[in-house]
Amino acid sequence: MNMDVIDVIHAKRDGAALTGEQIDWVIDAYTKGVVADEQMAALAMAIFLNGMNREEVARWTMAMVNSGDRLDFSSLGRPVVHKHSSGGVGDKISLPLAPVLGVYDVVVPKLSGRGLGHTGGTLDKLDSIPGWRGDLSNEELFAQLDEIGVAIAAAGSGLAPADKKLYALRDTTGTVAAVPLIASSIMSKKIAEGPGALVLDVKVGNGAFMTSVEAAAELGRVMVDLGTDAGINTVALLTNMDTPLGLTAGNALEVREALEVLAGGGPSDVVELTVTIARELLGAVGKGDVDPAEALADGRAMDLWRKMITMQGGDVDAPLAIAAHTEVIRAERDGWIDRLEALPVGVAAWRLGAGRARKEDKIDPGAGVEMHAKPGDRVSAGQPLFTLHTDRPDRFQHAADALAGAVGYAESEPEATPLVLGRVD
Amino acid sequence: MNMDVIDVIHAKRDGAALTGEQIDWVIDAYTKGVVADEQMAALAMAIFLNGMNREEVARWTMAMVNSGDRLDFSSLGRPVVHKHSSGGVGDKISLPLAPVLGVYDVVVPKLSGRGLGHTGGTLDKLDSIPGWRGDLSNEELFAQLDEIGVAIAAAGSGLAPADKKLYALRDTTGTVAAVPLIASSIMSKKIAEGPGALVLDVKVGNGAFMTSVEAAAELGRVMVDLGTDAGINTVALLTNMDTPLGLTAGNALEVREALEVLAGGGPSDVVELTVTIARELLGAVGKGDVDPAEALADGRAMDLWRKMITMQGGDVDAPLAIAAHTEVIRAERDGWIDRLEALPVGVAAWRLGAGRARKEDKIDPGAGVEMHAKPGDRVSAGQPLFTLHTDRPDRFQHAADALAGAVGYAESEPEATPLVLGRVD
Repeated sequence: MNMDVIDVIHAKRDGAALTGEQIDWVIDAYTKGVVADEQMAALAMAIFLNGMNREEVARWTMAMVNSGDRLDFSSLGRPVVHKHSSGGVGDKISLPLAPVLGVYDVVVPKLSGRGLGHTGGTLDKLDSIPGWRGDLSNEELFAQLDEIGVAIAAAGSGLAPADKKLYALRDTTGTVAAVPLIASSIMSKKIAEGPGALVLDVKVGNGAFMTSVEAAAELGRVMVDLGTDAGINTVALLTNMDTPLGLTAGNALEVREALEVLAGGGPSDVVELTVTIARELLGAVGKGDVDPAEALADGRAMDLWRKMITMQGGDVDAPLAIAAHTEVIRAERDGWIDRLEALPVGVAAWRLGAGRARKEDKIDPGAGVEMHAKPGDRVSAGQPLFTLHTDRPDRFQHAADALAGAVGYAESEPEATPLVLGRVD
Repeated sequence: MNMDVIDVIHAKRDGAALTGEQIDWVIDAYTKGVVADEQMAALAMAIFLNGMNREEVARWTMAMVNSGDRLDFSSLGRPVVHKHSSGGVGDKISLPLAPVLGVYDVVVPKLSGRGLGHTGGTLDKLDSIPGWRGDLSNEELFAQLDEIGVAIAAAGSGLAPADKKLYALRDTTGTVAAVPLIASSIMSKKIAEGPGALVLDVKVGNGAFMTSVEAAAELGRVMVDLGTDAGINTVALLTNMDTPLGLTAGNALEVREALEVLAGGGPSDVVELTVTIARELLGAVGKGDVDPAEALADGRAMDLWRKMITMQGGDVDAPLAIAAHTEVIRAERDGWIDRLEALPVGVAAWRLGAGRARKEDKIDPGAGVEMHAKPGDRVSAGQPLFTLHTDRPDRFQHAADALAGAVGYAESEPEATPLVLGRVD
């Protein structure tokens, strides 16, 4: 097929829907380098401003899926479950969730990426466990899943390479925040990861990409349609990201918190979201009669976690990294906390060394923010609100600056905000 | 100044006006390669779809002017006049116009480019004169203007280099046809060519970039404002390009026609437009009392043409290139011609070898289309309508295909269409 990229750009620029042939061609030609970066950038901006209809997004997504390999875990003979989070501050849900699910005889191939910006990546968190490795070969991944049912590993570069290239381009050309482009990016990878049930955790709030429930619901709707069209049993949960999840943001700090949850304790919001998503996925594969909270209470999830970490080279008994320096930020006044914004906490953790500005940056595993109070808690002036952890004490001030104004106080107990704000299926 | 290009792209993408500082920075950074092609492509598409206000376009234009050299012919002590055409089929007006103007003791530094696509460039036409060269150094240009007042030469690469780079990018990214980008591209070069009076010949019709008078008037308005803001006495004429100018399209063919006009004859539309533009420019520099038609009638323009061509190395008495093969296309029926579309004639000339598809393509100087009848002429079936000229006879069919349907017939004499459709000052 021989097409002119200018015709494709003109069509979208002038408000037309792209044909299936145009979409297949442009994605393939871009992946091969026949369509240049500047041409795809112009097309991405035209898509940003003029949108794509449901058919176009579906075709665009499948074209990206078809640009690379597709995994299929059905040979393992057990139901397969996937979960994706759109990224939030303190979101360590995948860590307890994977072993909880694995307890119930499902296959959990949790393929993740590394973090960029103010939200951390699951692989970065697990990297703080001495010896652990996430770069499993396909053979290692299948063998581990066959033996223990659960693995958390790096998504191979063979999955949706068109998306990899396009995502990097969007990141530098101001064309990230468009629903069709976000949805197709996420879903091309999830569809390439193979059939199964899928829960999409779409974060809503100041610490998330989507700041309104309406926008998150629209994104959820498009993604659920894409999953359904591709034969995947897909549900989206819209969950609150006005405030961080749990009481930690930072890699080793979050693993420690995940271990508390796996030990049957931990912050109630982390437990609640873990169990909610587990229930959705188990229900989707015909196991709606079990209560995944039990796997946390009775230690089975912890046992499976230890097996999983060990099989991937991790030393489950080694101490986790601890930052060399800490500093405490205290409450300015008495009152009820009615606001603790996720974005400033994420930025503070990032400034302390928990995140990257560029792909090649190194992370300090011990760095991050520990929270001592959350919305709904009563505090007295002088009581610790945050402990900042870092290896580089010159960063404290910069991190504290990010947190200025992040906390709100009320005279009376504020109304609790629900964690799950909506559901799209 | 340190800016983030993503912020600039986001601003325009989200419908804001860019600040002067943002525009200065992004043009400078793009010229230097700090802003990448794909980033400028995304910005260009956002400008295409969200527009720029008058202040933004003015600043954008001046930033491109300031990216390079500026010429100033005021040291020559005579009024300076410039003319720019937006490009049309058979538009050889610059060839007779420059010497006509020069007769009246004004300085005419006609700086031109080469053609791409279905409209030819002035330099390509003059290249068909043996020995002629358009690549004058600034010293040669000033010396020639000082001595005889007139030169037609290549615009140096030092003028508005930002525009040169941006124009090439727009050409490959589907972002050509936006008024702010067209206007700033044209005017940045004209402003860099130095103060003086300027007539913009904005073509309107099927063979032009602008197909409606309204669109051409909008482009003319923006360009006149830009010129005026830059201290240049600027007028735009909106002229008909539904039908080609004159009776030839092709390089040597057009030079031959220009020589007929300089000899006091030639097609009436070419004469009319040459004299109209000359009158505008002479009026603008206080010489409204002269009649430029006299310079054609009495041979003074021809004398100056011969001096100009000779000074630039051309042999004014050498025969012009003639194509090796010709073929005649005849009228299908009796009647009055009421339509002869410019675009098909331009495409046919291009297919015969008169134009380029890519910058590096070679042109056949003798190739092109000769027209034997124009709208308003009465023809009989079998009478010649076109003579096709080419060195490569395998191209005849492809050229004839372009001309199929290009001619319309009427039962009675059609109403004449005016050549000048509007004026913006």
